[in-house]
Amino acid sequence: MKELEARILKDGKVLPGGILKVDGFLNHRIDPALLYDMALELKRLYAGEEINKILTIEASGIAIAALTGYVLGCPLVFAKKSKTRNISDSLYSAEVPSFTHGNVNTVVVSREYLGEGDRVLIVDDFLATGAALVGLKALCEQAGATVVGAGIAIEKVFQGGGDRLRAEGLRVESLAKIAAMSDDSLTFC
Amino acid sequence: MKELEARILKDGKVLPGGILKVDGFLNHRIDPALLYDMALELKRLYAGEEINKILTIEASGIAIAALTGYVLGCPLVFAKKSKTRNISDSLYSAEVPSFTHGNVNTVVVSREYLGEGDRVLIVDDFLATGAALVGLKALCEQAGATVVGAGIAIEKVFQGGGDRLRAEGLRVESLAKIAAMSDDSLTFC
Repeated sequence: MKELEARILKDGKVLPGGILKVDGFLNHRIDPALLYDMALELKRLYAGEEINKILTIEASGIAIAALTGYVLGCPLVFAKKSKTRNISDSLYSAEVPSFTHGNVNTVVVSREYLGEGDRVLIVDDFLATGAALVGLKALCEQAGATVVGAGIAIEKVFQGGGDRLRAEGLRVESLAKIAAMSDDSLTFC
Repeated sequence: MKELEARILKDGKVLPGGILKVDGFLNHRIDPALLYDMALELKRLYAGEEINKILTIEASGIAIAALTGYVLGCPLVFAKKSKTRNISDSLYSAEVPSFTHGNVNTVVVSREYLGEGDRVLIVDDFLATGAALVGLKALCEQAGATVVGAGIAIEKVFQGGGDRLRAEGLRVESLAKIAAMSDDSLTFC
C-alpha cells in the first residue's frame, strides 16, 4: 500500500537491533486518517470473506482494529495481557513472546466473545517473528472459530514469521512489506 | 446519550464493589458503530473548540480515541503504562492509581507528541474517582498543552471524580452518567 510505504519512509526511524520506530503515526501518536485508508484496503483484500469479527492484541493493535471493525461493520475483540498465570475457566489463553520487550505475555480472551460461529480477521500493527499472530490464532482455535486471515500494517519479511505462517496455510496480507533494513536504509518487497 | 444508556441497560452487568462490566461492547469486545456515534456526539459537544489532538490511556481508551480522532480529523496519542519507574528525559510521566486493579501505574507520553501548540481533548472509557483524568491532565500541563476538556463514555457520578474536576474548572462531558448503582439496578442522572 503506497500511502503506508510513503509514510514509513517519511516518518519511520530504523533503530539498532532490527527495530523500526513508527510511533509518530502508528503506535503512540496515531494518524486515524491513515488507519482508515488501511482499513479500506483490508476490506478490499478480504472482500466476500464474510468476516464477522476482528481480533487484535493490546495495546498497539487496537486503533487499527477499531477502524477496521468500523469499516467492515463488525465488532472487534482485543486479547488482554494477563497479570497472572492463573487463567480462569471463563478465558481462552495463549503465550506470546515479545520481540521488542524480550519477555513473554500470557494473553486472554473471554470465552463469551469468541466462538464457533466466528469468521475472524486477525489485525495487528507489526508482523516480525509471528509470535503474536501464532498466539491469536491459537485463541481462535481454542474457540473453534475460523481464522479467515491476518491483516498486518507492517511486515518485517526478513524475520520470517509471515512466510512461515503462509507456508502453514494461513492467509496473511501485509500493507507494507519490508524486505531489508539497515541503519540508514529500508527496502520494501 | 440515549443510545449508550440503552446499551448499558441491555448489555452491562453490575458486579459487587461498584464495578460496571461493559466488556461486551466497550472495552474487551467493542462495537465500533456505537463508538462512531459516541465520537459524533463528542464532535457536536466540542464544536468550535479547534481540538487538534486526542489524548487517552492504554488500553481501553484507545478504540474510542481512534474513532474520535477519525471523526474530528486529528491525531490521537495514547499514554503508555511504563514498566519501569526510571523515566527517560524524552518522556512526560504521571502516576495513575487504578480503581479496578488496586495498583498504581506510571503512564508516559513521548515529549515529541505533546506540546505547547496542542488543544487537547482527553478521551477515556470510564470516569470514576478521576485518577486517570488527573494523570492525563498532568501530562498536558507538563507539555504546556491546552486541555480543552474531557470526553468520557461512562461517568460513575456517585464516585465524585467528575464533579471534583468540574469544580476545579475542567470541562467534562460524559455520554452516560450513572447516578447510583446497586446489585440489581442502575440509575442515570
